[in-house]
This record gives sequence, C-alpha cells and structure tokens, in this order.
Amino acid sequence: MFERVAILGTGLMGGSLAAALGARLPAVHRVGYGLEPDLSQARARGLFDETAHTVADAVRGADLVVLAAPISVNCALMDEVVDNLSPDALLTDLSSVKRPVVAALEAAVTRREGADVLTRFVASHPIAGSEKSGPDAADAALFVGREAVLSRLPATAPDTVARLEALWRCVGARVTHMTVGQHDRVFALVSHVPHAVAFVMAGVVANDLGASAVGEEPVRAGEHAGPGLLDMTRIAASSPALWADILIQNRVPTLAGLVALASRLQALAVTLQAEDRAALTALLARGADWRRGQ
Amino acid sequence: MFERVAILGTGLMGGSLAAALGARLPAVHRVGYGLEPDLSQARARGLFDETAHTVADAVRGADLVVLAAPISVNCALMDEVVDNLSPDALLTDLSSVKRPVVAALEAAVTRREGADVLTRFVASHPIAGSEKSGPDAADAALFVGREAVLSRLPATAPDTVARLEALWRCVGARVTHMTVGQHDRVFALVSHVPHAVAFVMAGVVANDLGASAVGEEPVRAGEHAGPGLLDMTRIAASSPALWADILIQNRVPTLAGLVALASRLQALAVTLQAEDRAALTALLARGADWRRGQ
Repeated sequence: MFERVAILGTGLMGGSLAAALGARLPAVHRVGYGLEPDLSQARARGLFDETAHTVADAVRGADLVVLAAPISVNCALMDEVVDNLSPDALLTDLSSVKRPVVAALEAAVTRREGADVLTRFVASHPIAGSEKSGPDAADAALFVGREAVLSRLPATAPDTVARLEALWRCVGARVTHMTVGQHDRVFALVSHVPHAVAFVMAGVVANDLGASAVGEEPVRAGEHAGPGLLDMTRIAASSPALWADILIQNRVPTLAGLVALASRLQALAVTLQAEDRAALTALLARGADWRRGQ
Repeated sequence: MFERVAILGTGLMGGSLAAALGARLPAVHRVGYGLEPDLSQARARGLFDETAHTVADAVRGADLVVLAAPISVNCALMDEVVDNLSPDALLTDLSSVKRPVVAALEAAVTRREGADVLTRFVASHPIAGSEKSGPDAADAALFVGREAVLSRLPATAPDTVARLEALWRCVGARVTHMTVGQHDRVFALVSHVPHAVAFVMAGVVANDLGASAVGEEPVRAGEHAGPGLLDMTRIAASSPALWADILIQNRVPTLAGLVALASRLQALAVTLQAEDRAALTALLARGADWRRGQ
C-alpha cells in the first residue's frame, strides 16, 4: 500500500496513526518528525521506526506524508513539505479545519508552479480524539469504528482518494466524503461549538460561587458536580492552546454556530421566564429526539 | 434503623433507593406507591415488598416516608402525606429543587397547625442519576460513592438529620449539608443550566444543516457526531417533561446561570472575532483548569 510514511507531528493523532500502522501494516516504514521531548518519547514507545530532525529529511523518500501537527503548524510546514515531496508521493493532513490547510497548500503550489501536487492531495479528518494529548496518549485502536472524512480538491486524482480510503479502512475507520466547505461548517456545529460551550460551562461552574443570602455560608458550586456535568465537560479538559487554534482557524462557521446556539438559549430563557411548560418541553424534546437516536 | 419505609414514586430515584434498601437493609419493609404500569413493574422486579393503592395506605404506619416523584407531584402529594404521617415518622424527598417542596410542606403544616412535622423533615438530594428513567433503570448501586446533600429546616430536630445521614451512608453515599437556598443556587449552576445547554446543543445539531454553498450537496451535521459531542449531550437524552418541571421549579437561579453563561459565550465570540489568541486561550484555560481538577 505504502512503503514509507512520514508523519509530521507526534501528538495524539499522529502518534495514534503511527501506532495503528505498526499494528495493521507492519511492513510500512514509519518516519516521525516533531518537537522534542515528544519525538524521542514517541520513538521510545515504538511509534516510529525512524525519527527525522528536519521536515526535509522526513518528507524525502516518503510515498505518503501526513501533516499531523496543530493546524497552524501544518500550514506553516507546507512550503517545506511541498519543496521536498517525492514526485509520486501522496499528501494528507489530519486537521480539524480544512480551509486554512488547503489555502496554505494552494499558496505553496502557486509559488512553485507545482500544481501537480494538488492531484496527490486529499484532506483527512478522523473523527476520533481524546481530552488527553501527546504521544503517551497514542492508541492504535483510536480510529476503529470511527468516521474518517476525506475532502478531495477539484484537482485530486481518483487514485489518490482510493489509496487514502484504503489506508483509513485498514486502521478501522469508515470513510465518508465532504467538500472542504461542507467539512468546516459541519464540524463547527458538531465539534467546535460544543467544545467552546463545554469550556465556557466549566468556567461558569469554576468561577461562580452560590451567592449567599443573609446568614448563609458561601458554597463553591464546582465542588458539587455530578456525573452529568462531568460527562458534559469532559472535552473541556482538552488543550486550551490547541482549541484556541482550531476555533480561530474555523472562526466564521464557529461564530455562526455560536449565534444559533445563543438564539436557542434565549428562546429557552423566554419560555422559562414565562413558565410556559408546553413550549419548554417541546424545545427540550427537539434535543432529546436527536440524542436518543444516536 | 427504620422498620417500614414508604417510597412515593417508582422511577429511577425511588426505584434505586428501594433496590439499595433491599440490598443493604433487608429487614426494612418497603412499601411502594406510584402510577401504573410502573408500580406493578417495580413490584415484579422485587423493588418493593408491598405496593399501596393510595398515598394514605402507603404513608400510614411507615416510620420513614420518601417523596420520590417529580417535583410538582411531590408538592401536590404533600397535603395527603402530612395528613397521614404517623406521629414519629420522618419525612424526606429526593427532589432536584428544594424551595417548592419546602414551601408545599410549610403550607400543608400551617393549614393543619401541625408544626411538629417540620422537626421530622429533612430534604435529601442524592447527586446521582441517569438519562434513563422508570423502574427498569433502578440500580441498587446508584448512590455508591455519590454525594447526598441534606437540607435541614430551622425547625428540623438533630435526631432527624442523624437518622437520614445514617440511611444515606448505608446505601453508599457521602453526606453533605446545604441550606435550601444554597442548594437551589448550586444545583442551578452544576446541573440545571448544564442540562438546559445540553438539550439546546443537541437541538442545534439536529436542526441545522451545513448550509450549502453553490454547487454543494446539503449535509446533515447531526450524522457526523464524534465521541466528544455524544458525551457532552448524553444528558439531553433525559426526559423533556421531567426537566421542564425541574427548570421551571428552579427558574430564578437557573435564569441567573443562563445569563452568566450567555455573557461568557459572548466574551468568547468577541475574542474569536478579534482573533485574539491569548485572550481566547486564557478564557478556555479557566474551564480546563476546573475540569482537569475533577
């Protein structure tokens, strides 16, 4: 399938893909590139067969290059990747937001008059993750049963898509397809807005005391969280820097989603203020119907 | 400890208390009262040793009466409970909101000049639950390791508190204490607002399509939910009618919490619009710090 795969980024996603390749395709030679000490740690855990000290060293000779760093870093690496990509190598990324990565690729390609690289690129977004990060969180089974969304460009060759589909199926994912624009709007709603809300909800609980009436001791609300709140805010334990990057990179669809959410929260507050039990129940039931169907 | 316990309400909470009593205090005779077919189903599952067809039959002769129905129902049953309570029987409830239950009790007591009932009442709120409901969801281990918040009234006798504390410890809970006012403000923040937000988030995902650009197929966002969104909205599979009741019963503190949340979401949107990475990261970090400490 592939002989030599370069994975740029040794965190949860890159590390898990390396682990899954090691388990499912042991003949593949895995080259890792990333920051220390994570790179050495990933190598010590057996996630890579070889580590490279420069992007050029990692990319040269690989027949698949995977951008697996935070989005901004993937974009920043693009020039050096394109400069060193072998003539037949395929290129993909694992970013949660696609438009900036594609824009960086198109800019790099335009500068080099190397438009054929576009035929060999397809974006990948495996819908799997964890609030944990770093190579220690890498898990060979992370993608099993999960969706992997592929976004082809107008120029992407059918063979490029077919080979990446085969790779994702091999590590246990089921493949779906969206355009870059569809992808970024869908994941603003199902991932980026929910993360923003979970972080904010956790912040409200952390900071607001139960304001005390006359003669009452103050109580720290956050010390009384039950399992519902803990599940709801699990994703708020994720990396703030990583999520600030994702939200900023996908800010237009995310802001649209936040507006939709705020408008529905406002509608809920109105029914609550009016003690309109039927309207409030109907509003809650819309969410319950969806969630029970999952 | 107690010889005969009457539990009014055969759903998740009442059923689980009945199951836990059966497991930990087999000498206790458990009398159940509730709506059919749940009552018969609970009896068939062995949650009760006896079922009663009226509140009066359930309450008479019990040395502990537990109001375990939805809040509005607990309030509506209060007159009949007080009328039939044995002279030394204790009274508690399992409601998620305390002020309406206490108000109903005080009104019932005032009408009857039976103020001594107040010495024998302490409110209980076990912080345990599930998005499932009904007697089939009853679980003898539901309270193990969970917090049980007791709210005593100014008139509550110390012996009443001590006996209820012992009961909750016996079924595995750890006991804490709050006033009625503290309770309702704290649980607005850590439970009622999060449930409202989870229902609304699920509704946004269910109803909004990824709006299509020219030439793109529409995509249903809700079909691409990952594990983060599913955990975040697990509690949105709860009963809309039950949660409409809870939110309305605790509407003043819940509205205050929704305002605090909306204001922070607005602050997040402002940092996002401005691409202010440092401010956005700091805002997310406040939630992450709390969640990582849980």
